[in-house]
Amino acid sequence: MSKLFVELGRRGYPIHIGPGLFGRDGPLSIATSGRDLMIVSNETVAPLYLAAVTHATAGARRTENIILPDGESYKTLDVLDRVFSALLQKRFGRDAVLLALGGGVVGDLVGFAAASFQRGIDFVQVPTTLLAQVDSSVGGKTAVNHALGKNMIGAFHQPISVVADTTTLDTLPDRELSAGMAEVVKYGLVCDAAFFLWLEDNAERLLARDREALTYAIQRSCEIKAQVVAADERETGNRALLNLGHTFGHAIENAMGYGVWLHGEAVAAGMAMAADLSRRLGWLTNEDVERTETLLKRLALPIRGPHQLGPETLRDLMMVDKKVAAGKNRLVLLRSIGDALLSENFDESNLFTTLTECRSTA
Amino acid sequence: MSKLFVELGRRGYPIHIGPGLFGRDGPLSIATSGRDLMIVSNETVAPLYLAAVTHATAGARRTENIILPDGESYKTLDVLDRVFSALLQKRFGRDAVLLALGGGVVGDLVGFAAASFQRGIDFVQVPTTLLAQVDSSVGGKTAVNHALGKNMIGAFHQPISVVADTTTLDTLPDRELSAGMAEVVKYGLVCDAAFFLWLEDNAERLLARDREALTYAIQRSCEIKAQVVAADERETGNRALLNLGHTFGHAIENAMGYGVWLHGEAVAAGMAMAADLSRRLGWLTNEDVERTETLLKRLALPIRGPHQLGPETLRDLMMVDKKVAAGKNRLVLLRSIGDALLSENFDESNLFTTLTECRSTA
Repeated sequence: MSKLFVELGRRGYPIHIGPGLFGRDGPLSIATSGRDLMIVSNETVAPLYLAAVTHATAGARRTENIILPDGESYKTLDVLDRVFSALLQKRFGRDAVLLALGGGVVGDLVGFAAASFQRGIDFVQVPTTLLAQVDSSVGGKTAVNHALGKNMIGAFHQPISVVADTTTLDTLPDRELSAGMAEVVKYGLVCDAAFFLWLEDNAERLLARDREALTYAIQRSCEIKAQVVAADERETGNRALLNLGHTFGHAIENAMGYGVWLHGEAVAAGMAMAADLSRRLGWLTNEDVERTETLLKRLALPIRGPHQLGPETLRDLMMVDKKVAAGKNRLVLLRSIGDALLSENFDESNLFTTLTECRSTA
Repeated sequence: MSKLFVELGRRGYPIHIGPGLFGRDGPLSIATSGRDLMIVSNETVAPLYLAAVTHATAGARRTENIILPDGESYKTLDVLDRVFSALLQKRFGRDAVLLALGGGVVGDLVGFAAASFQRGIDFVQVPTTLLAQVDSSVGGKTAVNHALGKNMIGAFHQPISVVADTTTLDTLPDRELSAGMAEVVKYGLVCDAAFFLWLEDNAERLLARDREALTYAIQRSCEIKAQVVAADERETGNRALLNLGHTFGHAIENAMGYGVWLHGEAVAAGMAMAADLSRRLGWLTNEDVERTETLLKRLALPIRGPHQLGPETLRDLMMVDKKVAAGKNRLVLLRSIGDALLSENFDESNLFTTLTECRSTA
């Protein structure tokens, strides 16, 4: 097991990464011992891991659970309200702890429930997808979606512990493994050219679920995330760079209906679009664009947006983004592989060309 | 005009108190100039003050408004969602500012909207009821109600400015003026015996809306609140004392249906109950209990709970409270007028007697 730490003073917390972390004396026990515990999971993950996690947290004062339907389309205020109702029906107080057992949807929603129940209670992240392990479970961004925009309602609320058991990836569908790899590639593109190179050297091993390779990819991703979050918890600066591909991606997810494209798939296409636009602005070389697209393709990820989605629609939806300031959209773009920047200095016509060119023909 | 300051470092902000603050170059202009502004009010307050506030904020980049139905029963997640929808439909971004124009319901709900829209945007409090001016608009407690408990969903999120125009009290119904006085009395009971004495000397002037007396009562209340909040923003310590009467009161509000009893009325009855229980525990003298009850009665406030509400029901509902820890309820009680404490050392049977004795016979 490896253990990282997100350095945020009183709000700092450990990230545990490794196999077999659901043991009786493991990190889950430490985080929940003696507490009123509410485990929140979904219909897909609960049958696989709820029993193990319940066993690992047997030291809690009492344990209840809620099983939500699975999927991005359930990351809503309505489903959030069900969590509040369960907490109140069971008379959980401010000293209770929530445990999110699942992927990014469960983690984001439970995190926001913890942020707002009685104005804030503790929660533990137990991510069971690659995407959640490398990205969404770390850093305290919590949210639910609104019909008019993704992640539009939420809070910054840090977990008290992240427990990423790598053996849970054994049960992850291939498509979700690839989707998680999109966020791994993101770290290389944004700030670590050497990691990007390592990914190029190990793409097939990763897809084949080579345990050593996967563990390294998760660990390096969490290291970068922890560092960026510690330096800029509330995204007033460089943390925004970790949104590479996300403004494009959120627009795709929203337009297609939440859950039709997986978040990681939309981000992959979005990163290819960001690379394309960066080249049009004279920043990124053809070769770097090609390396980006090739790696994403090798990881079984899309590099084009959906055919149904015209450039006008995509552009309009991109304006509903948290990085919009004073009516101007700011995008994360690339100067080179491993060097991202936040810019509003892109010509509208360049963006439009990118959106047109990066549309799938099929 | 008097100006106080809530000392919270980067999150600190001014409280402006006085008549005629809705002028063109006043504090509202300073807080909103050049910003995208969304004014949220209700059907009662908007016809009275929306035009003036819109005029006072004419320096905003653009201004939109939402008018909500009036009343505590609308402080819900559903109504909150309407605010999010309006913000997204109008393409408001993270740099927008919300303005809450109304009483405690509007302020609490808009504050929580600001806390969670895009994970947090700025907001301005423009309280138009006595209760909101002396209490709920200051200190950053934001929330909506849940069917199973009052203020159960919310956040700590400080406004960037509070603008309490005392002339708005001219249009306040008598019943609401009295309800606001309950929170004023609370400050005296909790931590300022001299202020309590002043209230005893000025109760009739206050009910007669003597401008000088009202302004002093608001100012002194805000001074106390600002001090307590600065010392304990997230209520890990003494801030909890400002909840005197509130555990009893929230149970009454919830049992009767939100809005049937005004919040201040329920708090008044709750403070009388807290005084009664404190006497039974041997802390408060008969004389102090009597002074408390007399002052509340002179201010046209109830000192007994509703007849319909039996002690068992009230006790059960009191367990749904944010001060419950490890299954034990903690109550704010009184050692003397001006000296409150948080205690879980009250006998259940004493509490039961209080709930029985402090039930209205009518």
